[in-house]
Parts: sequence; structure tokens; C-alpha cells
Amino acid sequence: MTTQRIGIIMNGVTGRMGTNQHLVRSILAIRAQGGITGPGGVTLMPEPVLVGRNEAKLAKLAEKHGGLAYTTNLAELWKDDRYPIYFDAQTTLRRYEDVKTAIAKGKHVYCEKPVATSSADGFDLYKRAVNAGIKHGVVQDKLWLPGLRKLQYLIDTAFFGEILNVRGDFGYWVFTGEHQPLQRPSWNYRAKEGGGIILDMFCHWRYVIDNLFGNVTSVCALGATHIKKRWDEQGKPYKPDTDDAAYGMFTTDRGIICQFNSSWCTRVRRDDLLTLHVDGTHGSAVAGLRQCWVQHDATTPRPVWNPDIDSPIDYRAGWEQMPTGIAYDNAFKAQWELFLRHVAFEAPFRWDLKEGAKGVQLAELGLKSWKERKWIDVPAK
Amino acid sequence: MTTQRIGIIMNGVTGRMGTNQHLVRSILAIRAQGGITGPGGVTLMPEPVLVGRNEAKLAKLAEKHGGLAYTTNLAELWKDDRYPIYFDAQTTLRRYEDVKTAIAKGKHVYCEKPVATSSADGFDLYKRAVNAGIKHGVVQDKLWLPGLRKLQYLIDTAFFGEILNVRGDFGYWVFTGEHQPLQRPSWNYRAKEGGGIILDMFCHWRYVIDNLFGNVTSVCALGATHIKKRWDEQGKPYKPDTDDAAYGMFTTDRGIICQFNSSWCTRVRRDDLLTLHVDGTHGSAVAGLRQCWVQHDATTPRPVWNPDIDSPIDYRAGWEQMPTGIAYDNAFKAQWELFLRHVAFEAPFRWDLKEGAKGVQLAELGLKSWKERKWIDVPAK
Amino acid sequence: MTTQRIGIIMNGVTGRMGTNQHLVRSILAIRAQGGITGPGGVTLMPEPVLVGRNEAKLAKLAEKHGGLAYTTNLAELWKDDRYPIYFDAQTTLRRYEDVKTAIAKGKHVYCEKPVATSSADGFDLYKRAVNAGIKHGVVQDKLWLPGLRKLQYLIDTAFFGEILNVRGDFGYWVFTGEHQPLQRPSWNYRAKEGGGIILDMFCHWRYVIDNLFGNVTSVCALGATHIKKRWDEQGKPYKPDTDDAAYGMFTTDRGIICQFNSSWCTRVRRDDLLTLHVDGTHGSAVAGLRQCWVQHDATTPRPVWNPDIDSPIDYRAGWEQMPTGIAYDNAFKAQWELFLRHVAFEAPFRWDLKEGAKGVQLAELGLKSWKERKWIDVPAK
Amino acid sequence: MTTQRIGIIMNGVTGRMGTNQHLVRSILAIRAQGGITGPGGVTLMPEPVLVGRNEAKLAKLAEKHGGLAYTTNLAELWKDDRYPIYFDAQTTLRRYEDVKTAIAKGKHVYCEKPVATSSADGFDLYKRAVNAGIKHGVVQDKLWLPGLRKLQYLIDTAFFGEILNVRGDFGYWVFTGEHQPLQRPSWNYRAKEGGGIILDMFCHWRYVIDNLFGNVTSVCALGATHIKKRWDEQGKPYKPDTDDAAYGMFTTDRGIICQFNSSWCTRVRRDDLLTLHVDGTHGSAVAGLRQCWVQHDATTPRPVWNPDIDSPIDYRAGWEQMPTGIAYDNAFKAQWELFLRHVAFEAPFRWDLKEGAKGVQLAELGLKSWKERKWIDVPAK
Repeated sequence: MTTQRIGIIMNGVTGRMGTNQHLVRSILAIRAQGGITGPGGVTLMPEPVLVGRNEAKLAKLAEKHGGLAYTTNLAELWKDDRYPIYFDAQTTLRRYEDVKTAIAKGKHVYCEKPVATSSADGFDLYKRAVNAGIKHGVVQDKLWLPGLRKLQYLIDTAFFGEILNVRGDFGYWVFTGEHQPLQRPSWNYRAKEGGGIILDMFCHWRYVIDNLFGNVTSVCALGATHIKKRWDEQGKPYKPDTDDAAYGMFTTDRGIICQFNSSWCTRVRRDDLLTLHVDGTHGSAVAGLRQCWVQHDATTPRPVWNPDIDSPIDYRAGWEQMPTGIAYDNAFKAQWELFLRHVAFEAPFRWDLKEGAKGVQLAELGLKSWKERKWIDVPAK
Repeated sequence: MTTQRIGIIMNGVTGRMGTNQHLVRSILAIRAQGGITGPGGVTLMPEPVLVGRNEAKLAKLAEKHGGLAYTTNLAELWKDDRYPIYFDAQTTLRRYEDVKTAIAKGKHVYCEKPVATSSADGFDLYKRAVNAGIKHGVVQDKLWLPGLRKLQYLIDTAFFGEILNVRGDFGYWVFTGEHQPLQRPSWNYRAKEGGGIILDMFCHWRYVIDNLFGNVTSVCALGATHIKKRWDEQGKPYKPDTDDAAYGMFTTDRGIICQFNSSWCTRVRRDDLLTLHVDGTHGSAVAGLRQCWVQHDATTPRPVWNPDIDSPIDYRAGWEQMPTGIAYDNAFKAQWELFLRHVAFEAPFRWDLKEGAKGVQLAELGLKSWKERKWIDVPAK
Repeated sequence: MTTQRIGIIMNGVTGRMGTNQHLVRSILAIRAQGGITGPGGVTLMPEPVLVGRNEAKLAKLAEKHGGLAYTTNLAELWKDDRYPIYFDAQTTLRRYEDVKTAIAKGKHVYCEKPVATSSADGFDLYKRAVNAGIKHGVVQDKLWLPGLRKLQYLIDTAFFGEILNVRGDFGYWVFTGEHQPLQRPSWNYRAKEGGGIILDMFCHWRYVIDNLFGNVTSVCALGATHIKKRWDEQGKPYKPDTDDAAYGMFTTDRGIICQFNSSWCTRVRRDDLLTLHVDGTHGSAVAGLRQCWVQHDATTPRPVWNPDIDSPIDYRAGWEQMPTGIAYDNAFKAQWELFLRHVAFEAPFRWDLKEGAKGVQLAELGLKSWKERKWIDVPAK
Repeated sequence: MTTQRIGIIMNGVTGRMGTNQHLVRSILAIRAQGGITGPGGVTLMPEPVLVGRNEAKLAKLAEKHGGLAYTTNLAELWKDDRYPIYFDAQTTLRRYEDVKTAIAKGKHVYCEKPVATSSADGFDLYKRAVNAGIKHGVVQDKLWLPGLRKLQYLIDTAFFGEILNVRGDFGYWVFTGEHQPLQRPSWNYRAKEGGGIILDMFCHWRYVIDNLFGNVTSVCALGATHIKKRWDEQGKPYKPDTDDAAYGMFTTDRGIICQFNSSWCTRVRRDDLLTLHVDGTHGSAVAGLRQCWVQHDATTPRPVWNPDIDSPIDYRAGWEQMPTGIAYDNAFKAQWELFLRHVAFEAPFRWDLKEGAKGVQLAELGLKSWKERKWIDVPAK
């Protein structure tokens, strides 16, 4: 059994998401499990080098995980052949330039969403990647959530009959920071720093809908800035100027109506922080992050409208939780393994820069719909 | 104690709704409780005369309830002074003409919704009623559902702080009639017979929103005919040609965003057949038909997004059910009593023909929004 | 609305089954509900005349139910045109002769199972009925049990995918009569009086399988006389000489394997006195007399064999009970109404004397299989 | 206290069953508990040497458990007197030859079932073992399942009175591998690789019935290949060509009828993956893998057949779960200890190679019965 090392430049992993999901739970977890087994029994072993601007933070992170390689000098890595993959989890504002350079230097590219601050830049990156002949991918982690895998299982096994509609509810209450600390960075509520829930979440809804329910053909969205005053990490009040809730409707080329609400100003009385309710002619399902509940036609009740008495039907009791038959890996790690197989073993991988650009595109069209107060069609290609 | 009888012409109460809600649970229930006590201890006692076209059905209904008066000759009642109130629960197609006549004859008018098949007719009835100086009202039963009364209580006591948004979910699965009988009349799915869920439900949403959350200022709606084939009461297949689901958004003059979904093609995994989820700066509430659950800022959890483990928070456990401190009467009866007090004792009553016309108006604008794929503003007056 | 009376000669309804199921819960219940409504609004009203050999019992029964007509003289009814239907619920030994006479007299015939003591006699009755041009039917009540209707619903809606196998379990513990009274007549355990569980139950299994799972093509049965000594109604011991349990396997022309056990010597640890467990590629169901539980592929668990610990899976919790959406009438009454519509309104009715004869045939072939210790094919015809 | 070591050649323990049940939970568990105490206080301590063909796997397994001895050279162990016992858990195809050699070399032999691919080979091994004067045994683990021990207790204490019949249900749903991975090896469904549920399970049913209910005297079996297409471990589709369900009936020399169903195509709605329902004149019991429920004559209900109402009897509530008064060891370990005592201390041990051959014999006769469509008698010998 031979072992093949594969070096990865990890830029921007000192942030919460980069550290937890990409470094610790993905790359280091792959190392801990002994790498990835490929064709002919070869073992693929990722070797990261951490890149960032704050050397102290980098040093601390590298040491904490057993002395990883790190540097603040990205430029010198461009010519280092030991690292054929460039991964970018920086703030969105910096992503376009560095990914563009990585492509130009012949690196394979994998990056967080949004891939750029505009879909034009996103599609530009895609074209450059194609021309350069490199391999590329964009994080679309929600597709590997156990709850959504179970939903995919139901779709694959024709559980629903014809799917009619999907209602997605995402969100929770983000405290204002006045009486108790906020749970999200304050820049999320400032437009010029890349904030706004439409920009953040419509990238996700694009790939979730495209992959599960058909390509998005049109969008109608209404944003809102519900909370008018917030307090930042230092306890200083400021005025949020971008959307903290978005009410969106989408249609798809399979004729399915999708309604996805996203809100940082709602209190959760549902099964999970994200739920997808899918109705079909033969059955319905509600998926959360990890669990999925189903109700088949055969067990669908016949409610009678009689508000003079409490309902004789317990509307949740008639749903069955799907068993978790197989072990689901961390969603980020699952996609990382697929990308590494794509680079090293030519395995197929369809979640590329074009798909990433489409996510930004849907956010742009959602903002346009909000402004123009009408439905906007998604350009065909 | 003196007793004052008040005669009511009840037209169209042989149908399910008319019999159960208006005759039995309202008028006969008021009689059974000994009437309504007014100023000075006077007892108001309603005396119905049933009107319809099928004499056999009328006779059977009248006999079943102890020998009520009935007739198929509406015309002769116009001049009968013992009956100063005309109530109409006929099919919508017949309502405008008979209500118009009743007004012309000087009767006070109370009727079911929709008041007419067009808002123009509805507003016309309102103007005629004003000119005639009669008293008038329209059924808006949902306002007296115990769940909505509890919501009103929360609003009155400033529980919510500033209300941010409302999400209404109404509906359930109506079987197609192929393998088991349908639970709603088949005409609900035929356009030319007055079917369609927008026409049916937007009348309700208008008064619910106007009364609880501020006057509706604009609407954006998407209808759908999800089920393409149904079977009627005789088991014969037919092709539905009108909306069986409607995805609607509304704004109000208090800046509250309201999203109300209505569907006869969804399986229910929520607290009740109709739920209103209200988020405010200080707290949130979810109201069903009879119960209402609240979560105050003080008990709002701080969820962490970690799909690698099952959620450590039970998102429903953190809500508290409001106690039912007072007995709530049947919603229809509650409004009937208010109307009778309005007629007999000059008590205020704001749910008049104008409000009824506004309901039809919102349905019309919703259909227009669906067709034109854009937001439609509601005319100011 | 006109009313059409239809007279029924009810022979042998002084027994438990005849009185309870056929007279009281079927014919008298149909009268109590106001008859059966037919085409053009006509009301069909059955009028029974009770026939038997014990005049005192007849008189008592007739009086108890409001003074019904009765007689011990069957012969005089043959020529009475007011009674066009002959119903037979006598002991099996008497059925063939009286049904044959009824056919010869031009009466329509409806009767209990077994239609005769041999399939030859059963098929003979069928041929006579066809030649005489009369209408005929045989009781197959289990088809109208709510549990089996629900199973039929699952079949109609393709819930199962391909059906693989059916396991039927029928029976309960019949006390021997020694220490507490027996719950079934003692003749059930005597061969020459028509006893034996194969003769009793295979008639039922024939129509249940034929109607739900495909025509029976072969049978393999093993009978047993488990209890060697019983005590009769008078407390006198006797020696049972016929089968009190039968282990049967059947194949059908749809390739479904059916295994039906019938036993009066088993203690019940299952959902009901009769259960049918159906496995299909997409899902499974277990039907009892009134309820039905389902488990779809999507909710099928993945058990692991580990007897060192108690099972982490509750094998019953993963099944969902089907709701009872519609009201199910008494099974006997439901079939009676269909037969009366068949006679009076020419409605279709497929459960005729031929089907009844097939039931006896399966019992005969089951007994033959037991004796010859091999599978027996069912003749195609 | 003296310690007596006893060396065991363990061949084929790198497989799942061999590793978990025989090495870890039996031999290593016996070592961990300090061996087995024999007559005169002597402590018997087993010392395994692992044998296999894949040196890397052997080395890894040996190291994981603290550096056990291992070799790929079985031949050199034949002459090694430190190892008087030969244990075989290889695939069935290899067992006959290696066990035969072991006997010839004078080793005591213990092995998994089936002992050979034919009963002729199985009985041949038995004769060779007798002639060689060695000690021998075959794994019959189910006899030591806590549930079956409890059943044995009921038999020993005459709980049942006369036992009338036994119904065994074994199995669960094995996924096809199309939409989720299969839970059993794909060779189970291929005839030429030794697959088929009759071959697998009838070996078990033979010793279960022989030991608990009397020697099997005849068999009637019906096999089926219910699932026509499966997907293997690599996700490649293939066509199963052997039985995945078997419907079997057996008689015994005590006159008890046993019906044992085995299926990999059934969804489980019963107490456990394997249940044995035993009816006797005085009481009945249902045993699962670990628990056992009983219903005595004294608590047997008198059900009434009335499908017009839901059963007033909860048919499961009338059964009582037997307490687990003593700790039950792992079933494999329990039998290992008995075999080691047999070898070292001359303790009796009746589950020998002859009994193992009988298991293969019953599978052969079951397949013959299926093919010839009739009952087959088991030769007396």
C-alpha cells in the first residue's frame, strides 16, 4: 500500500468556520482516519499549510494541532509544487483576487461561498478556471447534511410521487447585543462589509433547490431590516442597514414552487434551525439538519374543522421519523473527500465554480426583485 | 324583566355551515341560553324564520329543531315587520341580489362572506346600506377563535414589543376522491362555480390582518393548481381549473410583513390547521384555533449551528401554552350576539359591509398579482 | 320519493350469527336507517319473514324486534311473490337442498358459507342458478372488515410496490370446557357434524386471497387435532376427532406466497384475532379486523444482530397506524346492501355461488394435501 | 491454585463473526475473566494462535489485542503440541478439508456451522472423529441465547403442560443495495458462493428443535427468491439466484408441529428479530433473543369476535415478561466454556460433529422438499 501526499494551501482558516469545519473537522479529521483510500489501494494523505495575515494567530493555531506548517507569505507558495491545491475561506471581499491568482498559477481551487461579491466576478472565475484546465469546486455543505441526504433518499425512491411544493424555514433569534451578546458577527448587519441575509443564504438555496428540486427559473423576494438598532462586539450601538430577514419564493423547471424564509429575527417553534417541508402527491416529508419525518398518503389524516373543541388529531403524531441507517460524516468533510478524489483520482465532481457563481447570481436577482417589487426570471444559462 | 323578540329571516341555512354554525350553534344556542341581556335588564330573544328553495329540506330542518317557522316565499317576508333582520348564507352567486333587495326593503342585513363575487358589488352594497340607514354586518368568525382572542390579548398587553412579522399557515390535505372520498365540495376546484382558495381565504386574511396587524397596503401572491385531476362526489374524474394553494405576502400600514400560505395540498406538521406565528422584539407567539404558545425574550434560547450532533435544544419545549382563563363562546355565536346588540341596543359594531367588500377586494388584487407577477398596492380608501 | 319494498325469506336466523349479524345488524339496521336509496331517488325497503323449525324461538325473536312476520312452513313461501329473495343461514348440512329448491322456485338466493358440504354440490348450485337466470350471492364478510378495506386501499394506491408474501394469523384459545365453558359450539370439534377448522376457515381464505392477492393456484396444508379431550355444552367430556388447527401455504397467479395459520389452540400475542402481514418491495403492512399499520421503505430500520444487549430498536414503534378516515359499516350489512342493489337495481355483484363453491373447493384440497403430504394444484377452471 | 494453559488454533477469525464472537467475546473474554475454574481449583487458561491467509490482517488483529501469536502456516501447527485444539471459522467451502486434517493429526476439533457443504461430508467427519478418539463440537450458539434459556426453563418446569406447536419467525429487511447499502454480504444471494437462507438457517433450526422440542422427523419447505435484483458492495447490480425466504414446517418425535419462517425480505412487527411462539395446554410463551413473555391458562382472555368495535382486549397486555434472574453470558462464550471443560475436564458435551452434520442434513432435505413439493421424512439413523 503506497501513500500519496497532497498539499493544500489553506487561506483564511483562523476564523471560526475555517478553523472548525475546514481545518479540524475536515482536513485534520481525514488525516486522523488515515487518509482516503483510492483506486488500487493507494492512500491519499492531505498536508495543509496555513496562510493568513496575523502571524501570532497562525502560530497558535498551528501549534495547537501538532505543529502544522504556516506562513503569512502567500506569494511564495504559488511556486511551491508540494501544494497543488488552493483553498480560500477568507472574507468574501478578498476572495476574487486571490482565487484569480491561484488559477493563474495553475493551482486547483476549492473555496467557500459566496465565490465573489458579484455573479459577474463569479462567472469570470469559472471561465478562467476552465481555460487554465485546473480542477475547481465550491463549498455546498448543506447538500451533505444528514437531513438533506434523507430527503434525497426519498426523492430517489419516488416516495413523494409528484413533488408539489417545498417550504424552507431557516433562522433563529440573533440577540441585538444590548442585554446579552450577539451570536453572529456585527458585520452581518452592515451592507458595505458584505452583510445581509439574502447575500448569505440565497447562495445556499440556489444549490439546494437546483440539486434537489430542479433548476431555479424565477425569484420573488422581500427583504426587511426588522431590527433597527444593534450593539456590536464592543457593546457599541450601531444602525443595521441591510436585510436581517428575507421572504423568498422560487419556481423551478420541474414546476415545483419553493418558498424559503430566512430570518435572524424569529423564534424557533419547529423541528430544527433549518427545515424543508416537501409535499408530494403520495407523501410529504419535513427534513431538519439531521432528521427527517415522513407522512405517507396511507397515514394522512382527514381533519375536520371544528374550533369548538380541541383538535382530536395530534398533527405531529401522524409523522414517522426516518431511521438513521448509515453513519453520516461531517458535511464539510464529506465534500472535501469528494474534491480530493476529484483532484487525485479524476472522480466526478459537479459542484464547481460555475455552480458557485450561480449562487451569487440568485442573491443578486433576489435583491433586484425586492427593489423592483416583482418576479425576476433567472437567465437560462 | 321584559323580553324583546327580534325576528330574523335566515336565508340559506340548509347548507352544512348555515345549519351548524348559524342556526344551531348561534341563534338556537342564544335561545337556549335564554336570550341576550341588554341595558335595563331587557332580554333580547331572536326568532328565526327559515327560508330556502327546497321545501322538504326546510320542513325537515324546522321540525328537527322543535317546529321553527319556515317558508319558500322570501318575497312575503319583505313586508313582514316581525322580521327586521335579513341574514344571508346562500351560495355567493345569489347573495348580491337578495341583500340588495333586503336593503331596499329596509331590513337590517347580516351575511356570510364573500359578500359578493366582485368588490365593486360589495362596495355598492355598502353604499346602499349607508344611504338606507340600515344596520349591517358581515361574518368574520376567525376574529373570535379562542386562539386569535389570545393573540389579541398579547397585542393589547404589549407582549410583543414591536411586531416584526407574521406567518400564517392554513390548510391540510384534501383527498382527490380517487381512493377515498374528498372532504370538501368538488366545486371548490372549479373556477366557474366560484371555486379557488384565493377567493375563499383572502377574504379571511383581510380582516384578520386589518384587525390585528394594521391595514393591508400591498399584496404579492402566487397561486397554483397543484392537483391536476380530482374525482367528484359521484366518483367521476374531472380536471380542476382553479387554485388549490396560494402563497401570499402582505404589507401593512404598521410596517409589519405578513406571509399567509393557504393550501388544500399540504400535510400538516404544525400545531393546528391554522397557525399564526408572530415575532416581536420582546417575544413571539404561535396561535392555533384555540391555543396559543408564547416565548418571551427572557426564555429565548441561543442555538448553535452544529449539524454533527442532534440538537441539544428541543425547540418546542421552550414555548409556554397560555392558559384558557375565560370560556370562549362559539366564534359565530359571539359575533351574532354583537350584531344583535348593535341592532337592538345601538352597541358599536365595526365589521360591516365595507369591511366585507374589502375582503373581496384583497382576493381580486391577489389574483391580479399572480397574473401580473408583481406586488399590487391596495387603494387607500 | 317512492318506496319499493323487497321481501326476504330468512331461513335459519335463530342462531347466534344469523340473529346478530344478518337480522339485527344487517336487515333491521337497513330498515332503521330508512332503507337504501337507489337510482332516481327510489327507496328500497327490505321486509323479512323469519323461517325456522322451532316456532317458539321464532315467535320470541319476531316479537323482540317489533312483531316481524315468521313461519315454520317454508313450502308456502315458495309461491309467495312478495318474497323474491331466499336467504339461508342454516347449518351447512341443510343448505344444499333448500337452496336448490329456492332456485327451482325462481327465488334469488343469498346464503352463508360454506355453500355446501362438497364443492361438487357447490358448483352444481351455481350451474342451476345460472340456468334459472336468478341472482345469487354468498356471504364473504371479511372483505368488508375495516382492516381489510384499508389493506385494499394500500393495494389500490400501489403502496407496496411488488407484493412478495402474505402471512395470515387467525385464532385464539378456545377453552376445553372442563374448567370454564367453551366459547364455540362443541360440534366444531366433531367431524360428522361438519366440524373442523379447515372446512370453516379455508372458505374465507379462498375469497380473501382471490380478491386481494391473486387467484389461488396451489395449496399445502397440515392439520392437527391439538386438544385430545373436550367437554360439551352440557359439561360432558368427548373426544374431538377433527382438526382444531391448520397450517396452510398457498401460491397465487400473481406469484405471491400466502401462509395462513388458523388455530383454536393458540394464545394471542399480536395486534388482533386475525392479522394479515403483507411485505412488498416498497413497504409492508399488518392489518387487523379494524386497524392497519404500515412501514414504508423510508422508515424501515436497519437492525443489527447483537444478542448481548437488549435491542436498541423498538420493532413496533416504527409502524404507523392508518387513520380511519371514513366510517365503515358492519361488514355483513355492507355486503347485504350490495346484494339488494344487485337484485333491485341491477348493480354488479361478483361474490356469487361460483365463488362460494370455490371456497369449499379449497377446503377439500387442503384436506387432501394434509392426507397426501404434498402440494395440491387448484384446477384452473 | 494451579493454572493449566490450553492452546487453541483459531483458523479464520479475521472475519466479522470470527473476530467478534469467537476471539474477542469468547476466548479473550475468558482470558480477561481469569480463565475457567475446574475440579480441584485448577484454572484453565486458553491461549490462542491466530491462523489465516492474509498476514497483514492477522498482524493487525494480533497487535490490536495485545500481541497475540499468529501465523499463515497452518501445517507447522499440526505438530505443535502446545495447541491441542483446532477451531475452524473459515468459509464453509474450506472447512471439510482442514477439519479432516486436524482430526488426522489428533487435534480436538471445534467448528462453526455448517460443518460441511453436504451432510455426507458432515457425517464422514463425525465418523473420523469417533475413530480417532478425539473430542469434537460444533457451534450451536442460539441454544445459549437468554431468550431460549428462559424457554428451556419453562419446559423444564412443565409450564406448558403438553406442548402443541411452535412458531418461529426469523428475519428482517435486508436492503437491496440500490438506495442504501445492503447489511449482509452479497454472496448470501448467490447459489454458487454458498448463499441461500435455507442452507444458512435450517442448520440452526435443527438443533433448536432437536434440543427443545424433540427430534425432527419430517420437513416441508417452500423457498422463494423474492427480490429479483440486488446491488453488491461496489454498487454493481446483480441477479440473486438463490432463496432469500423460506417457509418451513417440521414435525418432531414428540408430536409437536413446528413452523419456522426465515426471511431477509420482511419488515419486523414482532418482539424481536427471532421469536419462538410456543403454545401448550397450560400456557403459552413467546421468546425473543433475550426476553420471554408468558401467558398462563389462568390469565388467558376470552375474546369475542366483534369487528364493529375496536377490540376491548389489548392482546399484548395480557402477557407477562419473565424476569432476568441470572446473568446470561454471551452465547458463544457459554458454549466455548462447555467445550473447554469437555476437553480439559471430561465434562459432558452433546453438541458434537454428528449434531452438526444433522443441521446440514435438514437443509438438504428442506431443499429437496421445495423441489419435490412434498413432505420429506428425516432418516431415523
